Amino acid sequence: MAESLLSTIEFQMSLLLFVALAGYLLAARINQSAVIGEILVGLLIGPSLLGLITYTDFVRSVAHLGAVILLFVIGLEFKLKDIFNFKYSIIALVGVIIPWIGGFYTAKLFGYGFGSAVFVGTALTATSIAITANVLREMGKLQTDAAKAIIGAAVIDDVLSLLALSMSEQIVSGTLSATSIGFVLFNASAFLIVGAYVGNKFLSRVVAKVDNTKIAKKFPEFVFIFAMMIAFFYAMIAELIHLSAIVGSFIAGVSLGSVVLRHSKDYKEGAEYLHIIFASIFFVSLGILADFHALTANVIWFLIALTIVAVLTKVIGCYIPAKLLGMSHQDSTVVGFGMSPRGEVAMIVALIGLNAGLIKQDIYVSLVLMSLLTTILTPIVLRNWLYKKSFMDAFKKKRVTLQ
Amino acid sequence: MAESLLSTIEFQMSLLLFVALAGYLLAARINQSAVIGEILVGLLIGPSLLGLITYTDFVRSVAHLGAVILLFVIGLEFKLKDIFNFKYSIIALVGVIIPWIGGFYTAKLFGYGFGSAVFVGTALTATSIAITANVLREMGKLQTDAAKAIIGAAVIDDVLSLLALSMSEQIVSGTLSATSIGFVLFNASAFLIVGAYVGNKFLSRVVAKVDNTKIAKKFPEFVFIFAMMIAFFYAMIAELIHLSAIVGSFIAGVSLGSVVLRHSKDYKEGAEYLHIIFASIFFVSLGILADFHALTANVIWFLIALTIVAVLTKVIGCYIPAKLLGMSHQDSTVVGFGMSPRGEVAMIVALIGLNAGLIKQDIYVSLVLMSLLTTILTPIVLRNWLYKKSFMDAFKKKRVTLQ
Repeated sequence: MAESLLSTIEFQMSLLLFVALAGYLLAARINQSAVIGEILVGLLIGPSLLGLITYTDFVRSVAHLGAVILLFVIGLEFKLKDIFNFKYSIIALVGVIIPWIGGFYTAKLFGYGFGSAVFVGTALTATSIAITANVLREMGKLQTDAAKAIIGAAVIDDVLSLLALSMSEQIVSGTLSATSIGFVLFNASAFLIVGAYVGNKFLSRVVAKVDNTKIAKKFPEFVFIFAMMIAFFYAMIAELIHLSAIVGSFIAGVSLGSVVLRHSKDYKEGAEYLHIIFASIFFVSLGILADFHALTANVIWFLIALTIVAVLTKVIGCYIPAKLLGMSHQDSTVVGFGMSPRGEVAMIVALIGLNAGLIKQDIYVSLVLMSLLTTILTPIVLRNWLYKKSFMDAFKKKRVTLQ
Repeated sequence: MAESLLSTIEFQMSLLLFVALAGYLLAARINQSAVIGEILVGLLIGPSLLGLITYTDFVRSVAHLGAVILLFVIGLEFKLKDIFNFKYSIIALVGVIIPWIGGFYTAKLFGYGFGSAVFVGTALTATSIAITANVLREMGKLQTDAAKAIIGAAVIDDVLSLLALSMSEQIVSGTLSATSIGFVLFNASAFLIVGAYVGNKFLSRVVAKVDNTKIAKKFPEFVFIFAMMIAFFYAMIAELIHLSAIVGSFIAGVSLGSVVLRHSKDYKEGAEYLHIIFASIFFVSLGILADFHALTANVIWFLIALTIVAVLTKVIGCYIPAKLLGMSHQDSTVVGFGMSPRGEVAMIVALIGLNAGLIKQDIYVSLVLMSLLTTILTPIVLRNWLYKKSFMDAFKKKRVTLQ
């Protein structure tokens, strides 16, 4: 009886949501983002510590839904023109290449094989836009040049990381020979460009037109179902051409981000609600999947090295192009540190690698914890160090004004 | 490749949502509710006709989520005082007992065993409040005495049907002897009353309090996750004490229906969005599950007899108490026919019976099609027959007023 209860959908859903809530409470207590709290509590209840829940097929399915919905919602907040900006593209590109190389050789140095090293490199490319943007918003720095560069480059970063992910899956699984890398790069870019173009020029208009039909007026939920169908359809097409499903839902989101609805329920709001439940479960599941037993002394050293490399390569990889493109020393440093946190995409890369059997628990745990550490470190560096002087300046100025 | 694509979550989700959209289009074309369209298109793509999708573990899981969310959302619209009304309770009670007897003996007459007959009887008890209420609203009759009686009694009907379902599962699976029926009835009633009481007096206040905490102000999505956690937790408790999970989420919904939030995202809206996606998939899956191959000549006669019995027993079972309690002949007839459509609950009863192996495809198909037929018939009877005279009266009156 007890065993059959543990396998019911009701038990797993209520436990996963309970854990997500605990994650929020923890996050509030340690003053971190909810994502970090959710992963930490996921670690706690997973097989490595309390063993309250395992990574069942149901958890896997729901978490997968969560990842697709998550990238769709992230995509909804993007604008195409943000992606096609020369200055930010250069910062993003260099800030992707150097961490990739750093991650690859760090893994090699610790004796890991070619396939694992490729995944580690790829996981180091992605910037978590959510966390950086949130810190800058809290500090009232969202309208500065540095903030705009960070957000613009982070957007392009995500796209580049998704491209890198698509390639590494095939490089590592052996379906890709070194000579056909160009073909895959073409394939992936073509999907990004054609998918975004068709989505933006065609699908977004179809959605707006459907919103104006009798059926949408009669059934205000119709357009929401339609939008989610497009998200999963794009995810399916991406998988079909050997890209990652989340690349598809991301492009679907970018395509449908600017549609203005008049009659229907707002699918952005709807996707946001789906995201609240399913992305929470996704983050909890990341923690559940990580097995601390893999953390041997060697792995811990690897984790420490990887975290340092992750921060340094991103800081250098972004500082140099930013400085060369005419930004100040301080702004360039802020951009570098601002781009350091790895978040959702790095963890999804780790998850995909683990699920496909291309990396093992030791690397998976290291990547998840590295993402957590960079995410926890960045706000501290930004708040207490980089912006301290300018914050004090602003404070002094304010006092002068008040006198 | 093609086969592995068909089993991906992306393919199944986009197909299920595509089918749901097709269901909406069909529903608009034949002027029926979306639910009917979704089930019909589900029948079309299922294994019995086109065979585009089968009832995989993933479809089952998502549909199960849909059923739990569906009953939670239905519960949210209920008020406790609607359930504790003497007049409506009597109409509901008689209107549940007579159809149960009718269904039980019709199944017996066609040679089905005791267990199947119990499920057929139970499936005949539930009234679909959504469809009737919608028809009455469209006709502007929602504030009449008959409409109030229909809605009030339909609400109690659902509760009684859920009770009947909980009992039949145990009667048929043999875990319940005839002598312990009283105990189960007590068990189920106790859960309904205690669950609703605790939910209403305690949990709803906790939710309102959480809404006022710092954490809800910082994370406006917190309360939504909390509410959904309660829904699945109640569903789990219901399963734990051998009731159906949906009884639990229904009671959770009733408990949380009247909370007023000030800081958080509205979980009623959130649950509604989840419901749009997952209840749609649930209804599509009902169609997918039905196998037309089970429709032999004998089963078709059973279906016809069952549909006639379903309508007649509900009309008689509701007319008599309504008339005895002082309603007019026309109002009592309207109440009877208005209570006739079987909907979600009848289909869930059929689904639970099929999943548990307690009924076979022949009965499952008959119950699903019977639900569809009663649902399609009722609006026709109400619109074209029962309300024709009074509609003409209203029309004449209006013309007189205009002159």
